[in-house]
Amino acid sequence: MNTFGRYFRCTMFGESHGPALGVVVDGCPPQIPFDTEHLKPLMERRRPGKNPLSTPRQEQDEVEILSGIFEGKTTGMPVAMITRNRDAQSSAYDTLRDTARPGHADLSYYQKYGCRDHRGGGRSSGRETVSRVMAGALAMQVLATRGIHIESSICEIGGESAPDRFEETILRAKEEHDSVGGILEVTATGCPPGLGAPAAGKLDAEIAHAMLSIGAVKGVEFGSGFAAARMRGSVHNDAITSAGYSSNNAGGILGGISTGAPVIVRIAVKPTPSIAQPQQTVSMDLRDAMVTVEGRHDPCIVPRIGVVAESMLALVLVDALCEQDVVLSFRSR
Amino acid sequence: MNTFGRYFRCTMFGESHGPALGVVVDGCPPQIPFDTEHLKPLMERRRPGKNPLSTPRQEQDEVEILSGIFEGKTTGMPVAMITRNRDAQSSAYDTLRDTARPGHADLSYYQKYGCRDHRGGGRSSGRETVSRVMAGALAMQVLATRGIHIESSICEIGGESAPDRFEETILRAKEEHDSVGGILEVTATGCPPGLGAPAAGKLDAEIAHAMLSIGAVKGVEFGSGFAAARMRGSVHNDAITSAGYSSNNAGGILGGISTGAPVIVRIAVKPTPSIAQPQQTVSMDLRDAMVTVEGRHDPCIVPRIGVVAESMLALVLVDALCEQDVVLSFRSR
Amino acid sequence: MNTFGRYFRCTMFGESHGPALGVVVDGCPPQIPFDTEHLKPLMERRRPGKNPLSTPRQEQDEVEILSGIFEGKTTGMPVAMITRNRDAQSSAYDTLRDTARPGHADLSYYQKYGCRDHRGGGRSSGRETVSRVMAGALAMQVLATRGIHIESSICEIGGESAPDRFEETILRAKEEHDSVGGILEVTATGCPPGLGAPAAGKLDAEIAHAMLSIGAVKGVEFGSGFAAARMRGSVHNDAITSAGYSSNNAGGILGGISTGAPVIVRIAVKPTPSIAQPQQTVSMDLRDAMVTVEGRHDPCIVPRIGVVAESMLALVLVDALCEQDVVLSFRSR
Amino acid sequence: MNTFGRYFRCTMFGESHGPALGVVVDGCPPQIPFDTEHLKPLMERRRPGKNPLSTPRQEQDEVEILSGIFEGKTTGMPVAMITRNRDAQSSAYDTLRDTARPGHADLSYYQKYGCRDHRGGGRSSGRETVSRVMAGALAMQVLATRGIHIESSICEIGGESAPDRFEETILRAKEEHDSVGGILEVTATGCPPGLGAPAAGKLDAEIAHAMLSIGAVKGVEFGSGFAAARMRGSVHNDAITSAGYSSNNAGGILGGISTGAPVIVRIAVKPTPSIAQPQQTVSMDLRDAMVTVEGRHDPCIVPRIGVVAESMLALVLVDALCEQDVVLSFRSR
Repeated sequence: MNTFGRYFRCTMFGESHGPALGVVVDGCPPQIPFDTEHLKPLMERRRPGKNPLSTPRQEQDEVEILSGIFEGKTTGMPVAMITRNRDAQSSAYDTLRDTARPGHADLSYYQKYGCRDHRGGGRSSGRETVSRVMAGALAMQVLATRGIHIESSICEIGGESAPDRFEETILRAKEEHDSVGGILEVTATGCPPGLGAPAAGKLDAEIAHAMLSIGAVKGVEFGSGFAAARMRGSVHNDAITSAGYSSNNAGGILGGISTGAPVIVRIAVKPTPSIAQPQQTVSMDLRDAMVTVEGRHDPCIVPRIGVVAESMLALVLVDALCEQDVVLSFRSR
Repeated sequence: MNTFGRYFRCTMFGESHGPALGVVVDGCPPQIPFDTEHLKPLMERRRPGKNPLSTPRQEQDEVEILSGIFEGKTTGMPVAMITRNRDAQSSAYDTLRDTARPGHADLSYYQKYGCRDHRGGGRSSGRETVSRVMAGALAMQVLATRGIHIESSICEIGGESAPDRFEETILRAKEEHDSVGGILEVTATGCPPGLGAPAAGKLDAEIAHAMLSIGAVKGVEFGSGFAAARMRGSVHNDAITSAGYSSNNAGGILGGISTGAPVIVRIAVKPTPSIAQPQQTVSMDLRDAMVTVEGRHDPCIVPRIGVVAESMLALVLVDALCEQDVVLSFRSR
Repeated sequence: MNTFGRYFRCTMFGESHGPALGVVVDGCPPQIPFDTEHLKPLMERRRPGKNPLSTPRQEQDEVEILSGIFEGKTTGMPVAMITRNRDAQSSAYDTLRDTARPGHADLSYYQKYGCRDHRGGGRSSGRETVSRVMAGALAMQVLATRGIHIESSICEIGGESAPDRFEETILRAKEEHDSVGGILEVTATGCPPGLGAPAAGKLDAEIAHAMLSIGAVKGVEFGSGFAAARMRGSVHNDAITSAGYSSNNAGGILGGISTGAPVIVRIAVKPTPSIAQPQQTVSMDLRDAMVTVEGRHDPCIVPRIGVVAESMLALVLVDALCEQDVVLSFRSR
Repeated sequence: MNTFGRYFRCTMFGESHGPALGVVVDGCPPQIPFDTEHLKPLMERRRPGKNPLSTPRQEQDEVEILSGIFEGKTTGMPVAMITRNRDAQSSAYDTLRDTARPGHADLSYYQKYGCRDHRGGGRSSGRETVSRVMAGALAMQVLATRGIHIESSICEIGGESAPDRFEETILRAKEEHDSVGGILEVTATGCPPGLGAPAAGKLDAEIAHAMLSIGAVKGVEFGSGFAAARMRGSVHNDAITSAGYSSNNAGGILGGISTGAPVIVRIAVKPTPSIAQPQQTVSMDLRDAMVTVEGRHDPCIVPRIGVVAESMLALVLVDALCEQDVVLSFRSR
């Protein structure tokens, strides 16, 4: 399953070392201004190779829009976008053809499909997030028409919560042929009340799905999140006044429906599994082996994953806006 | 949206004080043994009124199967089940008709739909989990045919992690007209490798959606979860040997696909928002007000939510089994 | 698959001789007036046993609404409705337990599922249209809020197109232990332009799906339909003027999108396959056999199927209205 | 909505004069042999400009596969394919920017979306069927692994049913600046019994949706189709023997489930609406106007539409095979 959303449906495709990555956004409303200029700043934030903290793979990541835009605006038809893979060095993966990298999908994927594109992780590569950022750029343009804005910040890297220690923590891990993870917070402001619905359409459920669909994310929480499990009800309940909510332990969502307060979600990102140390593993036919993952890998993907998480939140919010619009269109008559 | 699943599709309905709660399970495989006897032990675990720790509402919760079963087995057709509401005391909610309870969906729901069934929270009541347990009972019968077993345990209540303190913690909160939350762990054993798929079909993403769709759940994590964000890659990666995985930091899922190790998920449950203390709130037209939520409410729903979380995990796993079966049916030719 | 629609999602269930037939309508807009009084006239039109032309099975068909209605209006939550089976005479079907009736789904169903509820055709009975009429009644209430009206008429029965010959044609077939089919036309007036979308969402494609999902329907055509295949373009094209379309060969739909002219669809209904004559057939294990289908069967279901076809058209139109509302909500800003 | 199928999901995109047309096939089983060689013969059959009977637009229609194929086989991941538009002459459409062509979606589309890509009909162009043939080629490879074969034949063109009159009929219409339609029959042989399901998943309902989603198709019928409406039940019922069905009035489908007999469907194709005669019409703001549609248009698209209809049938059958595989995987245990 490679489609996100029920109204604003984003179908993604592409492998790390295949010809291209792409997305088709079906259900995008018409008359939304959109062109490749809206894509550049977001794609740049995701792009590796910018500094010593990330993989030196030089992904130029030029987006081509194949459909759905006419004279600078969406037409209501599917918007297809692709980014070609240009700097892929597939031969570096030859030694991994038959070997499962620990912490990766290599073995579980092979056991399911009986085959795999081993080059750079194939579809299970972090590079597939290019598709998410392309879709997210369009979603953010839609959100802009409603005054909704999304941003993210890093809460922790490698257990450090002081931003001035982040770079140092990452570089130390890199020197030691190791990697670190971290925690990100993503916030949407300007959301009207009413996004989401009870049961399967809960806004937090949809966001959780979107966030956990990002590789390396191992947990998600809203508002006070896991800390809520240790609060009393009298403390956790956000008092409501005619001026709005007095606090936001709920993270902007009650009963699966947005309250109008900022939507606040945090995600736990695991340390990059590709490390230049020998690790115990198996071959595809389950014989014991050792592997050292050489190549161009980020010692920490947390800084680059922010724009991906923002994009995923944007997709969910546009979907929820569309669902809400149907309800409102009947109410207003 | 009230349907869970793409293959094993569970459409749920019903309000806390309406005639009945129900679920239609469409896409259930044929020839699965199922009758009301399979439902009883699970429904009993969810049922309130059993002891001083939970609401005294006496829900008999007898399930009636309306379709899809013939001579004790599923036929492949939709299985519809209903549970009638019998002990509903709607008049207790008259004073809440125009008042939003903090921590509940009352206001956000009303702002969306412009109306609401205020009796007991309507569809946004915890009572709707009856539908989930009914569907879960059927899902567990399907899982049993494949040797998959689900169970849950309480990790924490009100910040206490020693099981012998759980009851005391809840009773103290109750005496103080307050409530507590907690953390639950749900585990599936016997899962084959290969459940789930890259991108939108990731098994952990689907489970996260299912868990966050339960009211009161504010966070979810897999394997080492949020703690993974503080580990090094060399520590977090689970070494693989010909005998299996040496550890299970991944929680049984890599790249969104089950590894064959136990699937381990933890959820954070917020404290019950209904407390018998005066709280600051607003009326539906946003005028300041005070509310004290009287009535029959659990001071802690963690003990009763275990079977609901197990049920939701079961729904996701059956859905993933069906998806996997399509892949395997082509591989095996 | 037992769900119709993507926005206004109707999930149906039930067997001819099971406890009940039902439907859950998820995605119904809030604040639509609806109660059992809206159901009665439509259910009455579908009901058999009214005169010598139809089966004497006395289906009282009282509808119970289980959820989603509060104080006489929809709330935005799923509307579940059931009709219990009361006059089922299952023993009449004992002889058919192992025998396939020609023209029915008996054998194809059994070959798929490896089992079946043989009583009255189980889920493959015409009685399942009760669910469609229940859902259709709600859909028509939604359409009424937009000024859309649906009606149907009989074009032909048994090859006769003069209405005064219809009854005679049916009675003659009945006397000869045989059955007849016919052609129905269903029309929706008041549809705004803009319902439907290019490609998979074409309004005529969705209507065709809905109509062919009714048992016994073997063909569907729009506007001039099959006759269009014999027209020249200069004749078939409907001229457009500032006052509207000069003709309606298109049947109110161009490029899959409604034009504002009446939507006109015709369906071909095959003769009832249950006939009281000996027919050559097989047992479930494919041994040759003879069968004479005794019991209470309509010699012609065309008169009763009109309200079912109207209901199915109503479901599609509400779904299209919701889709259209999302587009319009963005255009109007 | 631009996605066909629930298991084998084909999401299509592209405009007649945009950069490219494409399709993403998600849910394709792994290990199916597929490369551009499998595409060529089908694309060639759809291609215009081959002879005086069709538009001289020279579409080279080279397909590029962007993902999902590794070493000549599918991997289970989405297969994305694109065909670039090369011979588009957009300026020829400048005069149609503000004018609705009768028989086309121009006005209904504009009234819905408030904008449109007027060049060559945009997304509502017959050229979008390129996407369908690309997806169909892959579907036919899947069907080949199960021994299912699809073919089509022309039953009528312009009312003529003698094949030796087809070319003459088309050329005469062309000379008279007019166009003709026709009737096509598409047949699938080798289908196992059991494809499709009762209610919304009926195989004939899904096929009807697929066929009516093709532009210019105005009707669809199965087996004896509309003629069934004039038959007696004793004639229409296909007798069953231990050797199979004695006739095939059902068109290979009973109760929405395939019987094992050939699946037979016929479609009515309207005459090409683009004709080089003056026609009465309106501008986008509904002022009266005249239009003569110059340019490169087929006087009859029936010969080229056969491969499109075969492709659509193939998509539906693969989807049904996947659904059936889930059922069988549980039965076989």
